[in-house]
Amino acid sequence: MEPRSGCPINAAVEVLGDRWSMLVLRDVIFGDRRFFRALLTGSIEGIASNILADRLRRLVDDGMLTRDDPGRGRRATYSLTESSIALVPVFAALGSWGRRYRETTEELAVRAELLEEGGPAMWEDFMAELRVTHLGAPTPPHPREPVVERLRAAREAARSRAAG
Amino acid sequence: MEPRSGCPINAAVEVLGDRWSMLVLRDVIFGDRRFFRALLTGSIEGIASNILADRLRRLVDDGMLTRDDPGRGRRATYSLTESSIALVPVFAALGSWGRRYRETTEELAVRAELLEEGGPAMWEDFMAELRVTHLGAPTPPHPREPVVERLRAAREAARSRAAG
Repeated sequence: MEPRSGCPINAAVEVLGDRWSMLVLRDVIFGDRRFFRALLTGSIEGIASNILADRLRRLVDDGMLTRDDPGRGRRATYSLTESSIALVPVFAALGSWGRRYRETTEELAVRAELLEEGGPAMWEDFMAELRVTHLGAPTPPHPREPVVERLRAAREAARSRAAG
Repeated sequence: MEPRSGCPINAAVEVLGDRWSMLVLRDVIFGDRRFFRALLTGSIEGIASNILADRLRRLVDDGMLTRDDPGRGRRATYSLTESSIALVPVFAALGSWGRRYRETTEELAVRAELLEEGGPAMWEDFMAELRVTHLGAPTPPHPREPVVERLRAAREAARSRAAG
């Protein structure tokens, strides 16, 4: 489908301007969920099965995800593409805004806080890690502690604090 | 309505995850359109009148816009709030992404390019200008050339180039 205008913000929201598409991408990027069932059962917003199926199909059509074809009876794996990996700064900006201007819980906001503190350098590191995991890029030669681990550890720590 | 989760990205997309809401906010922020008719007739994506009315109402309900009440027969003015002014970095990130990963026209992408080059310092200046225009904040003491003028000039220059 032709975009309704040549404006880059319109171009972005025509692909992303649907809350479920954004949440599915968030879960693939930050939650490392690659399978239909993991995306369905892990959804903290309770996505419905038919909506998840529709959004995955659309995201594949729009070049935001690829889906392997593992053959009869085996589950398909979804992978990010360069286009969707490049959304990390958009998610960081959305997370910073949401954390500040809407109601959120500390446990879930801690990742956004860490991404904001880390800034563009951390986003680049995270995108490089996603290219390794999803696109088969070679592992960078001087690995620091992966961002994905730092995000996971921050959320775990917040979860323990919340549990008292 | 309660958000479906306490995640800041979910919180953001519950308000913004609708393409028309984002485009209306884009036109108020970057196009300085403050009236229903200006938003309707100026929409390069051709927003329908009933959709515009609905999204304006929702954005007011969500605290993203205020609407003055000018009395019988006079047109209402919409103003940004601190929450929606704080979306400038989100729009900059979306514009950078759209410009790079989707099809856009040079005339419409030039603003995104300028915002990307200017970086967070320019976004802060622009947000300060929006606070003057929309929230009645005092004009900053050492005015540079306003960002709104630089964005407008860049677009005009690109339009002239496109017209040959």
